[in-house]
This record gives sequence, C-alpha cells and structure tokens, in this order.
Amino acid sequence: MIMKIAYTILADTLKDKLINKGFEKSDALECARLFAQATLDGVNSHGVNRFVLFMSNIDKGIIDIQSKPLKIKSFNALEQWDGQLGSGPNNASFAMTRAMTLADQYGISCVALRNTNHWMRGGNYGLLAAEAGYMSICWSNTMPNMPAWGGNMPRIGNNPLIFSMPGNPHPILLDMSMSLFSYGKMESYQRQDKKLPYPGGFNKAGEMTDDPQSIIESMLPISIGYWKGSGLSIMLDLFAAILSEGRSTGEVGQDDEESGLSQVFICLSPDKFLSKGKMHDIVNEILSYTKKSSTIDPDAEVRYPSERSFRIRAKQLEEGIEVHDQVWQEILALG
Amino acid sequence: MIMKIAYTILADTLKDKLINKGFEKSDALECARLFAQATLDGVNSHGVNRFVLFMSNIDKGIIDIQSKPLKIKSFNALEQWDGQLGSGPNNASFAMTRAMTLADQYGISCVALRNTNHWMRGGNYGLLAAEAGYMSICWSNTMPNMPAWGGNMPRIGNNPLIFSMPGNPHPILLDMSMSLFSYGKMESYQRQDKKLPYPGGFNKAGEMTDDPQSIIESMLPISIGYWKGSGLSIMLDLFAAILSEGRSTGEVGQDDEESGLSQVFICLSPDKFLSKGKMHDIVNEILSYTKKSSTIDPDAEVRYPSERSFRIRAKQLEEGIEVHDQVWQEILALG
Repeated sequence: MIMKIAYTILADTLKDKLINKGFEKSDALECARLFAQATLDGVNSHGVNRFVLFMSNIDKGIIDIQSKPLKIKSFNALEQWDGQLGSGPNNASFAMTRAMTLADQYGISCVALRNTNHWMRGGNYGLLAAEAGYMSICWSNTMPNMPAWGGNMPRIGNNPLIFSMPGNPHPILLDMSMSLFSYGKMESYQRQDKKLPYPGGFNKAGEMTDDPQSIIESMLPISIGYWKGSGLSIMLDLFAAILSEGRSTGEVGQDDEESGLSQVFICLSPDKFLSKGKMHDIVNEILSYTKKSSTIDPDAEVRYPSERSFRIRAKQLEEGIEVHDQVWQEILALG
Repeated sequence: MIMKIAYTILADTLKDKLINKGFEKSDALECARLFAQATLDGVNSHGVNRFVLFMSNIDKGIIDIQSKPLKIKSFNALEQWDGQLGSGPNNASFAMTRAMTLADQYGISCVALRNTNHWMRGGNYGLLAAEAGYMSICWSNTMPNMPAWGGNMPRIGNNPLIFSMPGNPHPILLDMSMSLFSYGKMESYQRQDKKLPYPGGFNKAGEMTDDPQSIIESMLPISIGYWKGSGLSIMLDLFAAILSEGRSTGEVGQDDEESGLSQVFICLSPDKFLSKGKMHDIVNEILSYTKKSSTIDPDAEVRYPSERSFRIRAKQLEEGIEVHDQVWQEILALG
C-alpha cells in the first residue's frame, strides 16, 4: 500500500537513523537530504527504497562511515581524490562541491574520485551544482551489468551519466544510465505482468525480447542505441578509471558486492560569461522551441529532461511523498 | 565504381584544390588533412564525399575562408570564441588545439565556439587531442533533424558527441550522433533496397519502422535510447548555446543552410597524474576485459569504440583508400 509522507518528516527520520548508525551530524543531514530528495522527485528506487540496503552495507563493512575523502593529486583545476570506501552519497556530494569551488577559480574543473560507494541517485549531484549556478557533467562506473554490443556476457556497466544546468523556475537535469531499462524498471513491468514498451535485452537464446522476465534471467539488457550506448559506457569507464586511477568496471565486478567505484565530476561556471538572466533566456528559448511540436500520440506532449520529475516534486511537496508502507515500516524498525 | 587512392595523393589533391580556392597554405594543409583522415578511416560521408559540397558552400558565401576565430571572453581555463563563419574543420581544429594549450596550464579546459560551420567528422578533433596525449569530450549542435521523443516534427539535432583518449597502439575514439541511423546510412540501405537492422524512426503515420524510405520521407528518425538520446541532444544544445553564447538548434533551423553552429571542446591532461605507460595499462585492461566475452553471433566479436575504424585505416594505408570514382572525378574537375 502507498502512504504519503511530508518531506521534512522523511528527511528528519532518515537523518535520525543515520545519526543512530554513527554518522556525524552534518554528514547525516546531507545524506538524509539526498535520499529524501531522490524520493521527493519520484526516484524511490535510489531513495527511500534503497535506504535499508544502504544501512545494511554499513553493517557489513562495505561502507565505512568514518572515512572522509582524501586528496591524492592535484593540478590546478584537475584533482584526484580517494573516497576511502566512505558513504557514496556523502563522497559524491563532497566531490561536486569541491568541483564547484575549483570552477569558481578556473571556470571549469574536474574532480575524479576513486574507491567510493554507490552514489544512489546521480541526479542529486547535478542538482547540487545547478542550484548553485553551475553547469555539470558527472558519471560513475558500476559493476558489469550489461553485455557490450554483440556479446552475451555482462561486461560493461550501466554507468549513469548526468548533465545539469541552472534554469528558471527550476534546474534542467538529465540523469541517464547506459541501459535502456534498469533492472528496477524491468522488475516493475514484470510484477504487473506486462511487456516492456520496446525490446530491452536478449533472452538466453540470444534473441531480442520485450519480456522483462527473460532479460532478468539472462542478465543481458541492451544499451541505449545498441552499439552506441555500449561504446559510451566503455568510454565513461575508461575516463573514470584513468582520471581517478581507480577501479574499472571489470575490477569492480571481481567482488561480490558493488563497491570501490570510480567517478568523475566536471563543473563549469557560466556566470563568468553570462548573467543569470541571459542564461535563463537561452534555456527558455531552447525548451519552448523543443516543446512547440505536435505529437504522435495526440494526448502526449514533448518533454525536456527533468520536466516530469520537477512536476512530481511540486505535487509531492504539496500532497506528501508517495512511499510503500512496508518500506517505511522497515525504515522505522531500524535501530 | 570504387577506386583506390594513396593517402598522400588524396591529401595533396585536396590541399591543392583548397589553395586554388584561396585558402592560406597552412589552413589548406590542415583542412585537407582532416578530409583525408576521415576518408582514410572509412568515414567517406564526412570526408571525400562531402568535399565538393564544402567547396560550393564557400562559393555561396556560407563559409568565409578568410575568417579566423576571434576570442570573445575568457576566464582562466574557460574560453569563448567566435568562429566568424570560417571553415568548420579549421575552426574546430583551432578550438581543440587551443583547449589542449589550456589543459596544459590548468589540467582541464573548455573552449566554446559559436558562429562556426559544419566540422565534418567530429572524431578528427578527438583524435587530434588523443594523439597528443589528452583526453577530450567535444560536441556540436546541428540543424533540427529529429523529433524530440514523442513529437512528430524535427525539433532537435543529431548533435555528434565525441569522447577520445590516448591508447596503444592507437587512440580510443567514440564519435556518435544522437540519431540511431544517420540519413547517409539510411540512404545506403535504401539504395540496396534493404530494411534497417532495427527500427530507425517513424513513418508519416507515426508508426515505428525499419523502412529507410519511410523515415527519409517523414524526416522522423529516432534518437538512441528513444527518450534518453532525445534528452541528451537537448542538453548538448543547451550547453553549446550557453557556453558559446551562440545559436541553438532551433535558431540554426531558421536558415535554409546549416551554418552558424555552436560547439564545445573540453580537454583533459591526464599526464599531470599518470605516466603514459600506466594510462595504456588501464586502457588495455578495460578493453581486453570487454572483448573477453562470448558473442550472440558466434562469427561476430565484441568491439570497442574505434577498433573498426583503425582496422580500416591500417588496411587503406596499405592498399589505398576506397573512393567512388565519380566522387574523385568531381574533385579533380574543381577549379
């Protein structure tokens, strides 16, 4: 059953649980904010639904909440940090904040982070930058969870890639992984006994299929644009592993648990060139042109990235955030 | 009929034609090199096959070969240049070279370029950086040539996106546009009276189809990953138009000819952190892991980005470059 929870109650509850777990207060506040914001924007899969697993990964020693990122190398606008297997959301928030400081100084910056843990919703770090007036590009590698194009064994990561920028009334955010459908999305179709809207992977016989069950069993989802997303996933892994001198997708896959990831945070400071007003004018020109299109389905509309999630945010801020009651009970039952 | 031409003859011939057209010698050399290299790597569509059109766009005044890029604004590692409607390949080569100089100084850099012309093969600028030891990310906007997801009118560009990095024995390059199939590719299937290997767009009735003819007529190719590539195309256009304060895809589409484009060149200098040897080790670990996979088609292999084009390069360096004799005759007939 779905229940509705006010944002402040959600964020406060998560914060208290994190403090009970041993987080420093400021870390708990930021980590709870990131989990709550993902849920507020409708990304429950990387918000509230993942919180209990996140906490159990602390108990298992996969996440070391005492660890802080450590600067390893730096050259002006380019820095390399070690996440020391700390909390993924906190490390990523730290890295993007550091990239913002460097972008102030240099106009553009890059912070590469190794040995970190799952950052949950990557879009959160794009929003962090965009809300402060920056443009950002960031990505993470993952464990191997897709075949490279043509292959029939998991070899590449779905490596989420984020682009963000300021906008008015809200930032513009693209948060996309390299797989056409996430496992979470496929499971959701499967639970409803539905086919995917488009073929989303291969079955064990190597045939492309829209049956989520077959793809979950074969572990062969397809990448966006077939060979193109496969290539992009490989490039993102190469960049992340090299710039951070951290682990590659293949190396991450040698462990049972997904940990020790490599991430890249690029930040740009457009306010060195344009006023906020000029920037918003350009954004609005592009988005209104894009939306001024008739549609194949007359009841549909053309949407730009994050348009839907900010609508969900507005609705949930007013009416409360939709959470499965079982998920909520499990969170309340945490120590 | 296909003929074979040695690289040096191809590059020299193009250079002579450019000099005859009024190019300065150094500009002619670089422009000819870029057209010839695209062709050498098998990208004839943005190499030799496009040369006559390029020359006629000079005659039409769309490309002003006397123009040089002009620096408009700069803030340390971030610069904004005006291409002054000069030669697109020369402008892009200049911008990436400038980004390389800035990356030397700052570790990462960004050169945004407005009012430029079609850069032909975007991968050329990725190779320029990678061969000199840099990692790069660059992209261009284009005229509106695809619908945004859900729409049935061209509203977004296929906005080619390039990632490149050094490798051994050759650089690693991803050069991908946001459309699943280019018009050139669809026309090639159409000429052979073949269907596309996957649905590549919508027909006029709004149905997804693998019939190239229907997509060419409707002008509704699909983007990679459907809604995902559509979103990425929009973000690339936003970044390019804002950072360069140049024209957006929609604004470019107001003219009959595709000109006055906006481009972004991001360059990173990994040698501030890693030796070339260490970098090559990481590249080779990732690529060999990726390729070590069985395949759905037992006669196929898993390939990494640019693997195929460097094979074509090696073959054509040895055996000569494949060029349609009609294309070659038209080039020879130029003034």
